Amino acid sequence: MDKKKLSHVDDKGRAKMVDVSGKEITVREATARGEVRMTAGTLKLIQEKGIPKGDVLPVAQLAGIMAAKKTHELIPMCHPLALTGVDVDFEIREDEPVIDVISHVKTRDRTGVEMEALTAVSVAALTIYDMCKAVERGIKITNIRLVSKSGGKSGEYISE
Amino acid sequence: MDKKKLSHVDDKGRAKMVDVSGKEITVREATARGEVRMTAGTLKLIQEKGIPKGDVLPVAQLAGIMAAKKTHELIPMCHPLALTGVDVDFEIREDEPVIDVISHVKTRDRTGVEMEALTAVSVAALTIYDMCKAVERGIKITNIRLVSKSGGKSGEYISE
Amino acid sequence: MDKKKLSHVDDKGRAKMVDVSGKEITVREATARGEVRMTAGTLKLIQEKGIPKGDVLPVAQLAGIMAAKKTHELIPMCHPLALTGVDVDFEIREDEPVIDVISHVKTRDRTGVEMEALTAVSVAALTIYDMCKAVERGIKITNIRLVSKSGGKSGEYISE
Amino acid sequence: MDKKKLSHVDDKGRAKMVDVSGKEITVREATARGEVRMTAGTLKLIQEKGIPKGDVLPVAQLAGIMAAKKTHELIPMCHPLALTGVDVDFEIREDEPVIDVISHVKTRDRTGVEMEALTAVSVAALTIYDMCKAVERGIKITNIRLVSKSGGKSGEYISE
Amino acid sequence: MDKKKLSHVDDKGRAKMVDVSGKEITVREATARGEVRMTAGTLKLIQEKGIPKGDVLPVAQLAGIMAAKKTHELIPMCHPLALTGVDVDFEIREDEPVIDVISHVKTRDRTGVEMEALTAVSVAALTIYDMCKAVERGIKITNIRLVSKSGGKSGEYISE
Amino acid sequence: MDKKKLSHVDDKGRAKMVDVSGKEITVREATARGEVRMTAGTLKLIQEKGIPKGDVLPVAQLAGIMAAKKTHELIPMCHPLALTGVDVDFEIREDEPVIDVISHVKTRDRTGVEMEALTAVSVAALTIYDMCKAVERGIKITNIRLVSKSGGKSGEYISE
Repeated sequence: MDKKKLSHVDDKGRAKMVDVSGKEITVREATARGEVRMTAGTLKLIQEKGIPKGDVLPVAQLAGIMAAKKTHELIPMCHPLALTGVDVDFEIREDEPVIDVISHVKTRDRTGVEMEALTAVSVAALTIYDMCKAVERGIKITNIRLVSKSGGKSGEYISE
Repeated sequence: MDKKKLSHVDDKGRAKMVDVSGKEITVREATARGEVRMTAGTLKLIQEKGIPKGDVLPVAQLAGIMAAKKTHELIPMCHPLALTGVDVDFEIREDEPVIDVISHVKTRDRTGVEMEALTAVSVAALTIYDMCKAVERGIKITNIRLVSKSGGKSGEYISE
Repeated sequence: MDKKKLSHVDDKGRAKMVDVSGKEITVREATARGEVRMTAGTLKLIQEKGIPKGDVLPVAQLAGIMAAKKTHELIPMCHPLALTGVDVDFEIREDEPVIDVISHVKTRDRTGVEMEALTAVSVAALTIYDMCKAVERGIKITNIRLVSKSGGKSGEYISE
Repeated sequence: MDKKKLSHVDDKGRAKMVDVSGKEITVREATARGEVRMTAGTLKLIQEKGIPKGDVLPVAQLAGIMAAKKTHELIPMCHPLALTGVDVDFEIREDEPVIDVISHVKTRDRTGVEMEALTAVSVAALTIYDMCKAVERGIKITNIRLVSKSGGKSGEYISE
Repeated sequence: MDKKKLSHVDDKGRAKMVDVSGKEITVREATARGEVRMTAGTLKLIQEKGIPKGDVLPVAQLAGIMAAKKTHELIPMCHPLALTGVDVDFEIREDEPVIDVISHVKTRDRTGVEMEALTAVSVAALTIYDMCKAVERGIKITNIRLVSKSGGKSGEYISE
Repeated sequence: MDKKKLSHVDDKGRAKMVDVSGKEITVREATARGEVRMTAGTLKLIQEKGIPKGDVLPVAQLAGIMAAKKTHELIPMCHPLALTGVDVDFEIREDEPVIDVISHVKTRDRTGVEMEALTAVSVAALTIYDMCKAVERGIKITNIRLVSKSGGKSGEYISE
């Protein structure tokens, strides 16, 4: 009755939420960035609060912060973490034209917050797209990357 | 290429999930209250379990407890907290007539649970409205306030 | 083997998500209001964007809109509805001092959006509390009520 | 004005999210199992990746892991816990035919993870049903139980 | 530059949320059942409302209804559906002893609600376990199955 | 008592979930793409299922599909939509090396699914990052854009 057979979801390929219970609680931080590329006309409308759907950047900023708290629901193997701080900000480069999205996330927990920082940037960028898409469909979200992280056994990481 | 310009979401107005990683983990508690005002007829139906949509108070009680756990998803700048206890209860004042909603929330974390207590009260009250709205549309939810809180650096607070 | 016994959660008290599949799809709208009562000093800080946690009203406005979409997750017996529009706004009465929260919700579905409108008001009000609680703990949320609704078999309702 | 009356949701029957703030943080683990019973033909299709909706077991495995993180949203009186590890796996018994679903959940927190382990098994099993229901409606989910738990004051538990 | 290679997640095994946009909107219903097996002592405590965590069945009933609304979040390939009615009930068989969990779900949409009915039963059963686990760890959830479904092209299905 | 003052969240800047109740229900589709750029070594590990956290692409594929269903929770002004189909796939370009993420989303509703398609791509890409970050921190997510959309009054859009 017990002739068991291992499933083809074997140890090699099987996805896991990796056990971090042996890791230490330390302050862990991560900074991520991304770019939203648009026409000069769209950027001007954002700056003048002329987008009919509302003032774009405060909406995108909030969406990014709230998304950081949802990271473990979105990314299947992410641990739920006790985030202790989230900040999302923007820089505008008119000559490109580009809006840079920057997030900074902090925790005191057993694993890092890179994914929270990257998720905050991604959702803030998507929200800029959503607010402006009636005006310009060709907006691109690009160059989303981890800028730095600290805390934890692997030490500090600075990308650039 | 890098002529950056600060966005109009500047440091002054920019919303933040404030960094609490430097705050101590302590037992923190909060009690909140609110009132649901209705006609005597509606209150009587609730007491006699005559509302067609179901027995009102147990549904409202559960909705309040479950909402406390969702506070950080609802209130944009709230931290996700490890709630260690939630209790929601009701008192009935027939002569007004009013149902008082009372919540008590507890955690051991770095920041307080006022919002969790107030959210539990609000959603329990909204649920009473929902269960009874086919009977009375004019029900009012009123006087939602923090009654007391303790734990944390700001010490104890008692409202009245 | 089958001597069944009805549970004590009998037909009378058992909560139900009422069957609305026989109701017609029509445009349905609801407007709700509530009040956030605070000191003149806190109101002034909000108006001057002097609250350290960020510019209060845009955050509260967004929280209200996003909460409308979560109504069926919060209120146990609410149906999930295809919301077609949500608007949240504020009026400031300096002499009280009070911030009035107003929501307007619209759908084309089989049941009304009263709860969505009331939930939007409640969560926007809670968010004002959260943003300002470091400045004033005694803020009260009060007089949350349905102002009007239209669409559906029960016709138009105007509260005042 | 204050002639209060206790609600019928009295202390005896009132549901509570029990206060665990006095309990110690320890490593806590739980293992749960369940069975999905189907025809030999359906099992063969799963093994040969012939189910049109997609490769069944990796989808079920992920659904189980993600559901473990949602346990406190689903089970009303469950505490939100900082899960530190989740693993879901399958064993196939061709002669029954049955797919056994096994979950293992770990935390360092104040209360146990039995419900997380049982929820992971249940949702993984439901997902197998969903992926295969176009092929066989009579699939049964059965024998979901806690296999073992450790950590915490009540010590180790082994079911069989 | 464009020498593309198909990923190994090829058409055969790739999971899909199947396109149902060509299917008709009809009334669709599903009934599911499951069993929670426990000792006579535990069942008696439930019936006498002697379980310390609260009155078990109303909590389980609500959890089941609320879970039906979360089905598409839990089961990866499930479509979000406009549920028009959900009912969860229990039957008690003292001689086994068993609590039968029964759900009935209704929609007017393009695809069926089997998964919603099965999810409601599963989460109601898990909630019974959670409420009683301090009293009895060996409770088993078993025999979860679709009892009947109607509506849609595949016609009526009755399991037994 | 009623000397009302318009809030500074005035009509110009106030964010709105735009009223779409007057728009027609039609089949609407959207396709989006994005790129995940990594080293050849990381790509090889993904292809050989050598990433310790599990087989990367099936996890990313599922995460993308599930995220499409969460779009209205993430993007503040998005309407909840009845998605009728979601497909996420990958193409591998070894010489760059890049994994292209492609999503296709379909609905029959009153507004388009561009945001759902873009959200699916973004979360699938973030999941690839998460699965591989222990191996390579410098992975970049780039060039997320709408490829095409159809249905609705604005007609067909093809980006390239």
